[in-house]
Amino acid sequence: MKIGIPAETLAGEKRVASTPDVVKKLVGKGFSVLLEQGAGTAASYLDQAYQDAGAETVDTAACFAADLVLKVRRPSQQEAERLQSGATLISLIESCAGMGSEDELIQTTVARGVNLLAMERIPRISRAQSMDALSSQSNIAGYRAVIEAAAHYGRFLPPMMTAAGSAKPARLVVLGAGVAGLQAIATARRLGADVHAYDVRPETKEQIQSLGAKPIELDLGEEGSGEGGYAKELSDAAKARQQQLLADELAKAQVIITTALIPCRPAPELITPEVVERMRPGSVIVDLAAANGGNCKLTEPDQIVEHHGVRLIGHTNYPSMVAADASAFYARNLLNLLEIMVEPGESGPTLKDFEADEITRAMRVN
Amino acid sequence: MKIGIPAETLAGEKRVASTPDVVKKLVGKGFSVLLEQGAGTAASYLDQAYQDAGAETVDTAACFAADLVLKVRRPSQQEAERLQSGATLISLIESCAGMGSEDELIQTTVARGVNLLAMERIPRISRAQSMDALSSQSNIAGYRAVIEAAAHYGRFLPPMMTAAGSAKPARLVVLGAGVAGLQAIATARRLGADVHAYDVRPETKEQIQSLGAKPIELDLGEEGSGEGGYAKELSDAAKARQQQLLADELAKAQVIITTALIPCRPAPELITPEVVERMRPGSVIVDLAAANGGNCKLTEPDQIVEHHGVRLIGHTNYPSMVAADASAFYARNLLNLLEIMVEPGESGPTLKDFEADEITRAMRVN
Repeated sequence: MKIGIPAETLAGEKRVASTPDVVKKLVGKGFSVLLEQGAGTAASYLDQAYQDAGAETVDTAACFAADLVLKVRRPSQQEAERLQSGATLISLIESCAGMGSEDELIQTTVARGVNLLAMERIPRISRAQSMDALSSQSNIAGYRAVIEAAAHYGRFLPPMMTAAGSAKPARLVVLGAGVAGLQAIATARRLGADVHAYDVRPETKEQIQSLGAKPIELDLGEEGSGEGGYAKELSDAAKARQQQLLADELAKAQVIITTALIPCRPAPELITPEVVERMRPGSVIVDLAAANGGNCKLTEPDQIVEHHGVRLIGHTNYPSMVAADASAFYARNLLNLLEIMVEPGESGPTLKDFEADEITRAMRVN
Repeated sequence: MKIGIPAETLAGEKRVASTPDVVKKLVGKGFSVLLEQGAGTAASYLDQAYQDAGAETVDTAACFAADLVLKVRRPSQQEAERLQSGATLISLIESCAGMGSEDELIQTTVARGVNLLAMERIPRISRAQSMDALSSQSNIAGYRAVIEAAAHYGRFLPPMMTAAGSAKPARLVVLGAGVAGLQAIATARRLGADVHAYDVRPETKEQIQSLGAKPIELDLGEEGSGEGGYAKELSDAAKARQQQLLADELAKAQVIITTALIPCRPAPELITPEVVERMRPGSVIVDLAAANGGNCKLTEPDQIVEHHGVRLIGHTNYPSMVAADASAFYARNLLNLLEIMVEPGESGPTLKDFEADEITRAMRVN
């Protein structure tokens, strides 16, 4: 059974779906690994290292002709057309439930008899935690968001005591205490910032405190906890109340890292333009929801803009900015997934029926 | 007595020599403060804030016509020609002892009867510590260098334990344990990196350890401690030995922050191209000596270059990248200096004779 690891083609994507360490394990399990030439270079994994681990480097066509193709990002239409009948592709498909027939990728793969499994559909159950790419990549995003904030903020994040006087730590607010938010809190605390955090789900309060940050509590009149530990969308009245109650807290912040995302919905507006205008010049907002409309409407995806002296950072792919480790964690997520997907056969490992396990069953897109 | 605070004109310089907080104190002491319009904007200090503190905003000519002009960077020839006879200018002059008559700036100011005082010449004595701009700015550079390293490194600096596995902390080496190096060590330790540090001065060992880093000890056969706590230049034989003994330590590092500077001398070469080629692809070298030839000859000033997959960061003005706090500390250095330079007079404060105090005596350039 051949596993293909193509180079990612989406603009700016530096990650790769497998690393030399993981390839070595796959080869040890009896797979043949076909790496597209240069697939890992942008993530600092060189072809030679994959070859040393037992992979063969091949061209694009040979890579996509494998039985099992592992990618990071959703394949393009052109890539989907390279897949062979009976093959399986696993990646972040980034499709929303119910979009079904409108999705050209799904049409193409159904027509070609290709199986699509979406990494973002791995259920949030405990035995699938080690496969959860949304978590592993969000964790990286949370870390990198703080580094980005520190790089753009014209002051120290930590307190500083010098012979010439002292500087207070930055007041940093994290909005959303999911995986990305919690890692942002942890990293900002490491750097010594004065961290405050808000989440619509009341059960996050203890987690925020355990990381040394101060929870911001608002009385919205309804709870925001939804399925699978994600936040649910609030009523319009609760949204308005949330914006209003948050305003004073946010206006006091010098750095805001905002991570509020609701799957397959536009990001909630948490920071109004009026709040931005009340912030001190030189403040920084890192909006991790930039790709979904932003938690602040002033954010521009993939751009850094200034409004009233406040800098809004709109990068949409933080994991790719930490490409080596992001790839390593993603590759391990895939390896852990393959552990439950394959069984040994006479002529090497084979894939089990996807319906046989609730994890692969949930991942099926087409 | 009028104090002028001009806008800095050197390309990329975002700092300003005074802040609204400090201006308020200067006005309280009886000075008139003339701020060049927009001088603080790049450092996020708006004209309105200076006006609220009691400054008057003026044009360039009026600002340079003040009795005392406070700048960050060495004035250009054009700026020097705007200064009035009998006026005093204080800034980082960045001149080397003995260059005297060859320096056009010094000729111009002597001819115009302008006094030049160099902030970098403030002696390293304990009562001048609060005025020491080299220290305050180096401290900021050390902090910012680590943020830059984190932003360019494709992996985490801290250790990371996740459901998908763990990542070891980055092995980070700091070369030079002066003010910048010690702050780099402290910041990298905050971020959780595995920090090793080397300095040619044996007395730095305890400081390195007290920050939680591991000192790298080399037997060079001579000591590198020079005047005023700075490192002195080693003999050629000791330099060669240093390069050779450091090589294995550096090749193991994933991040190197190098801060070895000897005043008015080219920076010592500590990282040879051979060492860079031995480092793991994706490693990062932040060379704080980039403006002086670099501690690695592959570094290009003001550029980011790659050699064998290793990224070399050559920024030459880290304090300007943290412009708000860098300006605040510089402004306080100047305020503390003025405390010993002025005496109250009938019609406001006046400057004392520069020869009357060892600090101002040491600062005189012309």
